[in-house]
Amino acid sequence: MLRVGMLTSGGDCQALNATMRGVVKALSSNVQDLEVYGFLNGYKGLIYGDYRLLTAQDFSGILTKGGTIIGSSRQPFKLMRVPDENGLDKVEAMKQNYYKLRLDCLVILGGNGTQKTANLLREEGLNIIHLPKTIDNDIYGTDMTFGFYSAVNIATEAIDCIHTTASSHNRVFIVEIMGHKVGQLCLYAGIAGGADIILIPEIPYDIDKVIEAIDKRTQQGKGFTVLAVAEGAISKEVAAMSKKEQKKYLENKKHPSVSYELAAAIQEKSGTEVRVTVPGHTQRGGSPCPYDRVLSTRLGAAGANAILNGEFGYMIGMVNGKTKKVPLEDVAGKLKSVSPDDQIIKEAKLIGISFGD
Amino acid sequence: MLRVGMLTSGGDCQALNATMRGVVKALSSNVQDLEVYGFLNGYKGLIYGDYRLLTAQDFSGILTKGGTIIGSSRQPFKLMRVPDENGLDKVEAMKQNYYKLRLDCLVILGGNGTQKTANLLREEGLNIIHLPKTIDNDIYGTDMTFGFYSAVNIATEAIDCIHTTASSHNRVFIVEIMGHKVGQLCLYAGIAGGADIILIPEIPYDIDKVIEAIDKRTQQGKGFTVLAVAEGAISKEVAAMSKKEQKKYLENKKHPSVSYELAAAIQEKSGTEVRVTVPGHTQRGGSPCPYDRVLSTRLGAAGANAILNGEFGYMIGMVNGKTKKVPLEDVAGKLKSVSPDDQIIKEAKLIGISFGD
Amino acid sequence: MLRVGMLTSGGDCQALNATMRGVVKALSSNVQDLEVYGFLNGYKGLIYGDYRLLTAQDFSGILTKGGTIIGSSRQPFKLMRVPDENGLDKVEAMKQNYYKLRLDCLVILGGNGTQKTANLLREEGLNIIHLPKTIDNDIYGTDMTFGFYSAVNIATEAIDCIHTTASSHNRVFIVEIMGHKVGQLCLYAGIAGGADIILIPEIPYDIDKVIEAIDKRTQQGKGFTVLAVAEGAISKEVAAMSKKEQKKYLENKKHPSVSYELAAAIQEKSGTEVRVTVPGHTQRGGSPCPYDRVLSTRLGAAGANAILNGEFGYMIGMVNGKTKKVPLEDVAGKLKSVSPDDQIIKEAKLIGISFGD
Amino acid sequence: MLRVGMLTSGGDCQALNATMRGVVKALSSNVQDLEVYGFLNGYKGLIYGDYRLLTAQDFSGILTKGGTIIGSSRQPFKLMRVPDENGLDKVEAMKQNYYKLRLDCLVILGGNGTQKTANLLREEGLNIIHLPKTIDNDIYGTDMTFGFYSAVNIATEAIDCIHTTASSHNRVFIVEIMGHKVGQLCLYAGIAGGADIILIPEIPYDIDKVIEAIDKRTQQGKGFTVLAVAEGAISKEVAAMSKKEQKKYLENKKHPSVSYELAAAIQEKSGTEVRVTVPGHTQRGGSPCPYDRVLSTRLGAAGANAILNGEFGYMIGMVNGKTKKVPLEDVAGKLKSVSPDDQIIKEAKLIGISFGD
Repeated sequence: MLRVGMLTSGGDCQALNATMRGVVKALSSNVQDLEVYGFLNGYKGLIYGDYRLLTAQDFSGILTKGGTIIGSSRQPFKLMRVPDENGLDKVEAMKQNYYKLRLDCLVILGGNGTQKTANLLREEGLNIIHLPKTIDNDIYGTDMTFGFYSAVNIATEAIDCIHTTASSHNRVFIVEIMGHKVGQLCLYAGIAGGADIILIPEIPYDIDKVIEAIDKRTQQGKGFTVLAVAEGAISKEVAAMSKKEQKKYLENKKHPSVSYELAAAIQEKSGTEVRVTVPGHTQRGGSPCPYDRVLSTRLGAAGANAILNGEFGYMIGMVNGKTKKVPLEDVAGKLKSVSPDDQIIKEAKLIGISFGD
Repeated sequence: MLRVGMLTSGGDCQALNATMRGVVKALSSNVQDLEVYGFLNGYKGLIYGDYRLLTAQDFSGILTKGGTIIGSSRQPFKLMRVPDENGLDKVEAMKQNYYKLRLDCLVILGGNGTQKTANLLREEGLNIIHLPKTIDNDIYGTDMTFGFYSAVNIATEAIDCIHTTASSHNRVFIVEIMGHKVGQLCLYAGIAGGADIILIPEIPYDIDKVIEAIDKRTQQGKGFTVLAVAEGAISKEVAAMSKKEQKKYLENKKHPSVSYELAAAIQEKSGTEVRVTVPGHTQRGGSPCPYDRVLSTRLGAAGANAILNGEFGYMIGMVNGKTKKVPLEDVAGKLKSVSPDDQIIKEAKLIGISFGD
Repeated sequence: MLRVGMLTSGGDCQALNATMRGVVKALSSNVQDLEVYGFLNGYKGLIYGDYRLLTAQDFSGILTKGGTIIGSSRQPFKLMRVPDENGLDKVEAMKQNYYKLRLDCLVILGGNGTQKTANLLREEGLNIIHLPKTIDNDIYGTDMTFGFYSAVNIATEAIDCIHTTASSHNRVFIVEIMGHKVGQLCLYAGIAGGADIILIPEIPYDIDKVIEAIDKRTQQGKGFTVLAVAEGAISKEVAAMSKKEQKKYLENKKHPSVSYELAAAIQEKSGTEVRVTVPGHTQRGGSPCPYDRVLSTRLGAAGANAILNGEFGYMIGMVNGKTKKVPLEDVAGKLKSVSPDDQIIKEAKLIGISFGD
Repeated sequence: MLRVGMLTSGGDCQALNATMRGVVKALSSNVQDLEVYGFLNGYKGLIYGDYRLLTAQDFSGILTKGGTIIGSSRQPFKLMRVPDENGLDKVEAMKQNYYKLRLDCLVILGGNGTQKTANLLREEGLNIIHLPKTIDNDIYGTDMTFGFYSAVNIATEAIDCIHTTASSHNRVFIVEIMGHKVGQLCLYAGIAGGADIILIPEIPYDIDKVIEAIDKRTQQGKGFTVLAVAEGAISKEVAAMSKKEQKKYLENKKHPSVSYELAAAIQEKSGTEVRVTVPGHTQRGGSPCPYDRVLSTRLGAAGANAILNGEFGYMIGMVNGKTKKVPLEDVAGKLKSVSPDDQIIKEAKLIGISFGD
């Protein structure tokens, strides 16, 4: 008899269901008596004992289904040690619900914040397996996270669509791509979509360099320019501010996002008409792409394998093409981000892409 | 020898190239000596004599290609009779360029505004064939315009993606769909995407009815609601204003578009978290869908047929499944819009979709 | 209280679920007590009393889901009056199961064969609503059937893929498209995919004309040719045979399908290398396209409307853009097929497509 | 002044254009005087001096375009040393054309066979850069080849479509996936598509084990089974034959491919109805997926970098996420294939996928 709890936490992405299916298919193919409890809406379900006993039926046909069949929510790590409005000790509550169901382990799907809480629960003595989910691919200790390439596909498709209309109208177009702190998604979608300029949080931009790049294209007789801009793209001026000044600046800015601000700046400085597109949450939705389905299935199977071997306290990562058990304590709290020295950045610059730096 | 001019005008859409290919394949299959002149960037090219002699090579492989190989621009009809900054009489200039190239006819692809200028040129004695392009399907005298279903596909895909993330997070989502004056695109994409609430310009909404519809879903245990909202959706209050008041209201509003305004209103009145997605110009881009390719090919062939028969002054429409020559004078200046009494609206309401009225 | 039976019969297609959802959403939005019984695997479920009480949950999220949640099977009309292997009178059994569940009506989704049995049940006194499903669009009395455009999309995508590889290798490619008796699907996909030659059952082909069309392209410097060939495409020789001879011919032919036969003939007569692609059942699968989802939702809503009004014995068709109740007795047993004189055929020929005739 | 020759050889795939664009964008961004010569239709163009001077225009907008703008053909390595029908020494001819154009290097895009000839030309003293193209991902010395994931996407989509129809009809479906010698494509598409049974050349199957796996699903109440079968899948009996016997066996078999043979065997042994789908060459076509576009752009840029540094005689591979120069002499003639001991195979088996062994 094996009793496994499962939860999905944080912003959703495309292959959560595929990953859970991988875990459960592997366990049910190898364990006689298996009980899987799905905690609803992330850690909230674990805290308040809101769960559902999941059957084989629940996992049938979900390989291709976006979203998560057990719901998700954001529960900030920094509030985990803070009692809720009724004075409930959340960590204690989670442990109690774990023990009450006599779970053998808890499989947690989520990103960086989720991972920190997963590690906390590990420190508290629970058997934890973490599976790295995020469209940002910013989890330390794994080359890839599931959700990333599905989001790249959707963001790239948006750039593709913009390309045909941009070339018909000789305009400057900004496509705003998800990524507040890390620019991986924007970088990959930008390259895949053939963007001329890519702006990411890790490489603060100089507005004059951006306009220079646009002008250069005009001089080459190319009537349009496409910019892939991460939500968290930041100008050199703002990057140079103190945290306090930055905060104040961001609170007072009049544009709903960096893209609109950038569009206004380009229009003002160069007189060119600029259009903004915000694919937004579509980047988290839809059916996972085949790449993600294979990745998810492998991570899920490797997670199940760890469970079957009684090995806990790990994130299952993909490292150099192989699934790998990575100790949670080694990675929790660390962020993987783009470096201006990365080979891919140099290659992008080599083919003429401007990063506005 | 046949000499044909061609131009694409107004906001671009997906099957402009497919339609031009249809015309030219039909002409070149049936005429020995054919010369096709493409005026660049819409009427601008015709006014200023900016054109390119197009070859068979130009039309090869463009059936599936979005955008327009000869560029487009918006040239408002109401300025056509107004001289340009250098005092040039635009209508006279267009006629001169037509005659200078000894054209047998001019094929014009565009929407309502384009059509009005096409009709003006017809009145001035030019041989005109108009092919109805627009993602809005708001051209009077044809059941369908090319570009519409390709845009429906992209808008629906956005709603599909939002659906998976909405259901994972129990949120209210607004997807803003193109359409300032006419709600066809939003209506079709809304139904196709399974939107719960559809707001279009032709049916002013009551914010309380919108919230009521959201609450009803919550009561039914459905944690999320998806709204498809046309750019030109309008509340009953604003609809009731005089033109002057409306203009003033729109100038002073603080949100970049109706969706953000609506989101704020819902959040304020109901406390629910609302997210906005704006697919924007992606709805005009990408490869035309098969429906549009067939439509475009047929309209193009029928246009060519009219040219071969020396029949001019027509828009080629699709009426009850058949291509049809529609006199430009009968349709220019008229708009086709959704009526609250349309059968499709009643059917949508029957299955429980709210229009906020 | 309203008690409705439902079944899906014949080869499956993409919008069966969307259509059933339309019916049920409309009924449940307008009827207090609704019971929906799904007979499993087509008429088989009705004959043998194999059914499931369907809940709102069953219809949630299925708008975009291919296949049918209640299964399907082919039950030839001509065997309906023939007792089964145990001597069971099938028609009597269907009536008994209908009455045993005290159904108010039976909603039947299917194609031509299905419709004949639906009409038989109507003649036997049951309350029937038929909804026209088929990828072939060959049902008399409706302009369009759901499933058709989704299949067109998949078949066109196959041709699109073949186009890039064909043009790289200067080869002749045959894409075999579903359609044994009727060529609509092949015709539309062929035009949408830019096929150079389209062969359909309604227009028997002359192999020499086919080779002539290939040669003509070679002479024009186009190194490749793409043929869209319907499963039921037939040569003039075979078309001229008596039924008996035809049957004998088909039994003895050595190729698995017409495409392979045609490929061999082209290779033998012209020496050109020919490749065959058979998308096969993929044409029936996947998520329904937005066009089909709107069509299905409308037909479903109109079907529900008829039920709510107590109007039975109809197929719900789409005629000139409007849903319409069409008496089953007027249409059952009739087939809609392509005529060589159809406007679309003439338009296709005008742009240079060869039909091998 | 830099003079670069370029050719694409072997079966085409999706990101050939994207890769060439990467090379040329990088070179033209960094070299003042650049001349790029495209040899037409693979080595054939190099042998017979059939080439075209390519301009920036040629490389514009081709990132998303399938096929190859300079054509391809298969020229077996083993015939390179054999004079052609006119007695022409092919290797000498290639060298002469290289020197006649005073090329600084030759960029060759292709698979295993292409690579062998590329290495031969290196041995003959030409400056060679090889870029690894193939939908099979079977090139030794690189983790990934461009074309692979685009083909995985198309093959997976076929399985997805089959899934909905299979589940509606309770049937066994075989999807035949490209791969004569290597099963990577079938393996990845099979896992991504949720196939129940995957048969690849590297793991000979036992027909009884295959039927056992189908029966097991039936016993679990799952009415359908989907098999992903590589073109080169082989039974244990045939695998055990001598080369001679195998050849004889393959010559005499009556089915057009392994899938039809397998279908017949399953039908005969188990009585189940089996349907076969052959996506065929569609797997090589269409627009490259974003994964491939990033890979191609990086490999192209890295190839250009090598050229700029005067480093020749390399394949540019992707190893552990980084582009890398791999000496041609180390890899030419070697094949990368799936091993039954690969981690991914074990993971696939863990979740219950049968390989028929």
